[in-house]
Amino acid sequence: MVTHTRTNQSKGEFHGRRSYAPRPHGHGASHRPAHHMRPVAEHKPAPHPKGEEPVRFIALGGLDEIGRNMMLLEYKDEIVIIDVGLQFPEVDTPGVDCIIPNVAYLEKKRKNIKAIVITHGHYDHIGALPYVLEKLGNPPIYTTILSKEVIMKRQDDFPNSPTPRFQLVKGGETHQLGRYFSATFFDVAHNIPDGFGIIFRTPVGNIVHPGEFKFDYNADGTPRGMDTWERVGAEGINTLMLDSTGAETPGFALSERVVEEELRKLIAAASGRVLVGTFASLIDRLGEIVKIAEDLGRKVAISGLSMKTNLQIAQNLGYLHFKKDTLIPLEELHKHKDEKILILCTGAQGEPKGSFMRIANGEHKHIKLKAGDTVILSSSIVPGNEKSVQTLRDNMARQGALIYHNKMLSIHSSGHAPQEELKAVMRMVKPKNFIPIHGYYFMRWRNAKHAQEVLGISPNQAIVTDNGHVLEIYSDGIRQSSERVPVDYVMVDGLGVGDVGEVVLRDRITLSQEGMVVIITTIGKSDGRVIKNPDIISRGFIYLKEHQGLLDEIRKRIRGIIGRIPNKENLDSDYLKTLIRDQIGLFLFNKTKRRPMVLPVIIEI
Amino acid sequence: MVTHTRTNQSKGEFHGRRSYAPRPHGHGASHRPAHHMRPVAEHKPAPHPKGEEPVRFIALGGLDEIGRNMMLLEYKDEIVIIDVGLQFPEVDTPGVDCIIPNVAYLEKKRKNIKAIVITHGHYDHIGALPYVLEKLGNPPIYTTILSKEVIMKRQDDFPNSPTPRFQLVKGGETHQLGRYFSATFFDVAHNIPDGFGIIFRTPVGNIVHPGEFKFDYNADGTPRGMDTWERVGAEGINTLMLDSTGAETPGFALSERVVEEELRKLIAAASGRVLVGTFASLIDRLGEIVKIAEDLGRKVAISGLSMKTNLQIAQNLGYLHFKKDTLIPLEELHKHKDEKILILCTGAQGEPKGSFMRIANGEHKHIKLKAGDTVILSSSIVPGNEKSVQTLRDNMARQGALIYHNKMLSIHSSGHAPQEELKAVMRMVKPKNFIPIHGYYFMRWRNAKHAQEVLGISPNQAIVTDNGHVLEIYSDGIRQSSERVPVDYVMVDGLGVGDVGEVVLRDRITLSQEGMVVIITTIGKSDGRVIKNPDIISRGFIYLKEHQGLLDEIRKRIRGIIGRIPNKENLDSDYLKTLIRDQIGLFLFNKTKRRPMVLPVIIEI
Repeated sequence: MVTHTRTNQSKGEFHGRRSYAPRPHGHGASHRPAHHMRPVAEHKPAPHPKGEEPVRFIALGGLDEIGRNMMLLEYKDEIVIIDVGLQFPEVDTPGVDCIIPNVAYLEKKRKNIKAIVITHGHYDHIGALPYVLEKLGNPPIYTTILSKEVIMKRQDDFPNSPTPRFQLVKGGETHQLGRYFSATFFDVAHNIPDGFGIIFRTPVGNIVHPGEFKFDYNADGTPRGMDTWERVGAEGINTLMLDSTGAETPGFALSERVVEEELRKLIAAASGRVLVGTFASLIDRLGEIVKIAEDLGRKVAISGLSMKTNLQIAQNLGYLHFKKDTLIPLEELHKHKDEKILILCTGAQGEPKGSFMRIANGEHKHIKLKAGDTVILSSSIVPGNEKSVQTLRDNMARQGALIYHNKMLSIHSSGHAPQEELKAVMRMVKPKNFIPIHGYYFMRWRNAKHAQEVLGISPNQAIVTDNGHVLEIYSDGIRQSSERVPVDYVMVDGLGVGDVGEVVLRDRITLSQEGMVVIITTIGKSDGRVIKNPDIISRGFIYLKEHQGLLDEIRKRIRGIIGRIPNKENLDSDYLKTLIRDQIGLFLFNKTKRRPMVLPVIIEI
Repeated sequence: MVTHTRTNQSKGEFHGRRSYAPRPHGHGASHRPAHHMRPVAEHKPAPHPKGEEPVRFIALGGLDEIGRNMMLLEYKDEIVIIDVGLQFPEVDTPGVDCIIPNVAYLEKKRKNIKAIVITHGHYDHIGALPYVLEKLGNPPIYTTILSKEVIMKRQDDFPNSPTPRFQLVKGGETHQLGRYFSATFFDVAHNIPDGFGIIFRTPVGNIVHPGEFKFDYNADGTPRGMDTWERVGAEGINTLMLDSTGAETPGFALSERVVEEELRKLIAAASGRVLVGTFASLIDRLGEIVKIAEDLGRKVAISGLSMKTNLQIAQNLGYLHFKKDTLIPLEELHKHKDEKILILCTGAQGEPKGSFMRIANGEHKHIKLKAGDTVILSSSIVPGNEKSVQTLRDNMARQGALIYHNKMLSIHSSGHAPQEELKAVMRMVKPKNFIPIHGYYFMRWRNAKHAQEVLGISPNQAIVTDNGHVLEIYSDGIRQSSERVPVDYVMVDGLGVGDVGEVVLRDRITLSQEGMVVIITTIGKSDGRVIKNPDIISRGFIYLKEHQGLLDEIRKRIRGIIGRIPNKENLDSDYLKTLIRDQIGLFLFNKTKRRPMVLPVIIEI
């Protein structure tokens, strides 16, 4: 059984939560609903028995979601931030560009921020930087050269954001961050180069954040880099945090070597053009595909700005080396024979404006599909995109292209360590305490359960916490404070940051389900008489032009509602609006069994 | 290579499409986009060389979707319909209750309809009946007793729909349907009892529609009912249709016996209450779970009307037998000890109003979750529900319940035969021609490809067709006609059937992404002067109350727009509306980078 913040089982002296946890309010604590509804405890917890000051761990995002990763460690008056990521919008945030962490807690303490550490260059780890850097007082960013370049490339879109200040680091280096923290960086394999993990050396012991990683393998199938984890473990680790994204996936990840081998076979067997789609952020895979094309004598054209940019950055830094004439512009595709062409495309998730969807719909300027084309979708489907990916496959198959996707062949592998890799890292690092990070509650819960099993630690040492909760890490254990930090969504929509809130989102969802009806009634200011026939416009409800009868009935009812008001001289327009909203709403529901948003407007003349 | 309707490879004499297919229009046919964009050929195809009249096969739905299954066979002046299903709404049809087939083609020919055959009682096969039965002239429905009861139960909600006329059938029986068609029914295993397949005996030969099925197994793991398929094959089959839903899933389906065994183990091991969620339509599984509860001495309460109804129907028909006191009302749960309770719940997809979500949110009247509860989600996730199922798992795990889902243990199995079962049926039935049905294009394409491999037939004998296309089945082959039948979506929303169209849906989607702004301008009829400050209301855009500056600027611009019009005496209000829409739209975009729907209203006084 894994610790829930709400249970109060106690084992051992200090690790036991009984002495520190906020008391359950009244009886039947276990009957209470999800703990985020629990009121914050009103009493201060007792100080640590030995008077030790803790390192505080707070996630501003990255728990209860996949994305928006931003965590911090705080000791006395010093703060170190780990990652500043964004989250892509979901079903319940329609129309929003992205969601970023709330940094209100840090704004007040900006003077204390000693460093931002960026583990790797993916948007869910760097994407919120331009929005919050100024609020954080533009502290130095510790990261690797590739992540720096990706961040700087993005800055072009944010001319008003302050110029980031970088401190470049490499695996193996140790950097002092303020007086209390130092950080030793170690290389990890992910699906973008230059990712690292960190051993934070703190007054309470070593705290490890391994970034995001998966095991890498040599060509002979032996795992690579295991010694790194063992060296980390040899340092003596107080607390290990571990990505939970893969905690529900059994086994080991497919080796990227296997993926490459499978791609090579498919491309070698193709008799016509080959189009390959994958995530633009998978720089390693992109590089490997270009190499395969070179080996097989194919030129490579790229359709998709983000992919082009990423490959360019990696080439500039010397991470990838291609022959001078391998990459060709899309405009020159026609100069080469089909069997000498490979095209890398973005949009494998079926994004409406992506390269692949434009190709599938015959709207791409340079690429028209034809029978004999081979299309390889070397990616997984991001949840929510199932239907659009299906449409993509269907439309391309209809045009005679041979489609291969990751459920047919081993042509994609996730960048997130699955269960057995996570367990192996736990065994090698041997931490005293474990905090599962990244991913939804149930994923983190399972990650914590694995840690209990593998490490033989108690539920109080494998702690499933939440965004905004404060964990206090001591040299002899972790306790959960009752303190809470604001972590509500900050939504970015167009130029607005934070101006789309709950009300606007709720309205968008209602409008999308039921549509709306605006009813404009013009009445005389002096006598409350209806001056002209009410104007009615609607969108997303029913096509009113074809329902003249319904329009007439609404107008008749408006006149009726106003006619029944006895004293029209001092007509309260708010009262009248409520009447119209309720009565017309009910009338429309009875007629149609739909509940459009009814918006009455009263014009007094 | 599988036949695409667009390719024109020709092999053999009659099967070749060259002689019958509409000619490609001009050169470069293979460059043209997806074939549904192809104009209908303007010439009549040549008659059959032997003067034979074909059986026409038309799908009104069920190709290019999972759901809305409705197909028909037509010979001279006789028509037989197979299934009349609905489709559940998707991302691109927000707010819609369901989608039903367009029956315009059949309405004109209602006199010719000899029978509706309903293969089994799932909503994607029966759900559109109450909407279209009258339009079809209420022909007799050939189906089994359970399907009849499910259909009749549903009729309660449609008092104005005609009372269906049933002809009950059983596996093994042959019924004459009109002069030209007779149907021999054979039992198939699905996850609802009483499903069947049909051999249609027609003037051009035997045509098989096997309904939906999966292999069933005995307790010792040997497959059950293989002899049925072999007997079907022994009849000599012209054309086999086959469900493609599982055509992308490798291997064989998990035996329902394994699922039951796994469920039994989990329930036996639970020390507290057990809550089990699954699809309400999986009557077999529901029955088995109740039996397991009986064996283990647990009472069963049911939370969810559809589940209760389905179990009741199956009990009434004698398909399920429970002890008299096994089922208890939810109200009596408190009378029993936790370890003596099992609760069957709907809403395992995380539907907002479903039993499980209400339980997870602490809003269920009779069930409050607590530590020690075991929750078993014995179902797959329907694409699109990933996020809500995640929320469900998270919220229940937070309350201390132990959650088990189908990716953790073998506690769910699909009702749709996967690849190896489909191939086995192909081998046993040995048809001369093959039509993949049900599922998206790429699934059907793969099903057809498997048929080519397994049966050694040519692309012209394994035909991937589309909704609304007409296939002509002859005794010596199939040809694709250029004729098209209307198959556009008919959407049901509240009481309206077909009144939500493309325009309304497009508006709903726009509103959900960008919101809207209504601008009401009152002007004098005689002089075109602005009489009062324009009223502005918006929803789903930004919270305008907090953006007074923007409101003021919009008003100023309205006055400016009208002020610049030279001749205000004969103000064309449509012209003015366009000006406002364009200019305010542009202004808002420049200010916010959002494009709300701008709706100008001009009130002339």
